[in-house]
Amino acid sequence: MVLKVFGSWQSTCTGRVLAVAEELGLQYELVQVNLAAGEHKQPPHIERNPFGQVPALQDGDLVLFESRVITRYLARKYGKDSQLLKEGTPEEAAAVDQWIEVEGQHFNPPISTIVAQVLFVPLFFGGTTDEKVVAAEVEKLAKVLDVYEQKLSKTKYLAGDYCTLADLHHVPYVHYLIATTPYGSLVETRPHVKAWWHAVSSRPAIKKVLGNMKFS
Amino acid sequence: MVLKVFGSWQSTCTGRVLAVAEELGLQYELVQVNLAAGEHKQPPHIERNPFGQVPALQDGDLVLFESRVITRYLARKYGKDSQLLKEGTPEEAAAVDQWIEVEGQHFNPPISTIVAQVLFVPLFFGGTTDEKVVAAEVEKLAKVLDVYEQKLSKTKYLAGDYCTLADLHHVPYVHYLIATTPYGSLVETRPHVKAWWHAVSSRPAIKKVLGNMKFS
Ligand SMILES: N[C@@H](CCC(=O)N[C@@H](CS)C(=O)NCC(=O)O)C(=O)O
Ligand SMILES: N[C@@H](CCC(=O)N[C@@H](CS)C(=O)NCC(=O)O)C(=O)O
Repeated sequence: MVLKVFGSWQSTCTGRVLAVAEELGLQYELVQVNLAAGEHKQPPHIERNPFGQVPALQDGDLVLFESRVITRYLARKYGKDSQLLKEGTPEEAAAVDQWIEVEGQHFNPPISTIVAQVLFVPLFFGGTTDEKVVAAEVEKLAKVLDVYEQKLSKTKYLAGDYCTLADLHHVPYVHYLIATTPYGSLVETRPHVKAWWHAVSSRPAIKKVLGNMKFS
Repeated sequence: MVLKVFGSWQSTCTGRVLAVAEELGLQYELVQVNLAAGEHKQPPHIERNPFGQVPALQDGDLVLFESRVITRYLARKYGKDSQLLKEGTPEEAAAVDQWIEVEGQHFNPPISTIVAQVLFVPLFFGGTTDEKVVAAEVEKLAKVLDVYEQKLSKTKYLAGDYCTLADLHHVPYVHYLIATTPYGSLVETRPHVKAWWHAVSSRPAIKKVLGNMKFS
């Protein structure tokens, strides 16, 4: 039974799951949920995710939502030999969890607001970017990336010298920040963050995912 | 070597860690970080957590920050026989992770803003509650709790019929919402959410933590 990922190729949260699925070499079907048509707020999708968002995963009888829950499940179930979670010891696992949570709690809020304002509001909602909101979030993101710069001056990837779920979770938003907003310099002016992004984004699995994350 | 938790008895994020530490029956020392004096933004605390927040944990040589990372570590390291993470199978683990992430991504943003505005802004910052902000977040929290009501009509706790990390992570903010804001009815008008909170908050370990979460 092939894994089903419900979402869209361009959605950032779907991309987070696809990055991990590709990295694990999994076979999956991407079942498109038409956000423009509001399909995510109606059955059957609302039964997969009561919050009415993408992505969701179906693996046999198991249905999950929340991108970071799906990636953790995939890494556990199908990536026992991968280094993606390092669950062998509680200490190594905690190093990965540390930066998974930093992504979810510190990095994601400002960068998702910036990308939504600059890219999605004009593109999908016919609105205008709120530059005041963007400026405030750029300032927050800069401080977060200062912490990353410090950490990445000590280890090649966030949790250590190996690529983990923590790094992969950053893929969709860093990509859009650089490819579609004027704020890519937040990454490019920080040498260790820049080198880290180069290392992550040049992995074959990630290149494949990023190839689908564009708007024609 | 006794575990050290750096934080404060009344801080919600510290409380999240203490709830799990007590539930596991761990011995720990709460090392007070004086937030009013800004100790969290200076060495030595800033070396424990580069984001300058509480809590942090020290366990021998290991230093961690982010409350939800600390709780996961404690449950793994010291709670092998507990049901708190259910890591035996990827499917059961995912059910717990599902609701840990819902707490972090959906529940925490509105409830932390409400409690900050109603309780902390006047108490610690000499400010006035922004009622417009509160109203918007109350509306969001109500929708989140509708999802909880639906889930808790099927299982006693969020991940199943056993209490897990996912439930315990909610303790500090639900407590302050009910004890210190006019919005406790968000919990009390939803019968399954109300019964769940009664079950969680009457656990001896949780009662002990809540006994310290008050302002004289
Ligand atoms: N925390 C969720 C966030 C999901 C999310 O925000 N998904 C977006 C697409 S990237 C969505 O469905 N937006 C439509 C909506 O929220 O109505 C996750 O990581 O899966
Ligand atoms: N995501 C963090 C949040 C930590 C947090 O917000 N801590 C608060 C106390 S509950 C704090 O240190 N506030 C002071 C500040 O942010 O400057 C966690 O869960 O540990």
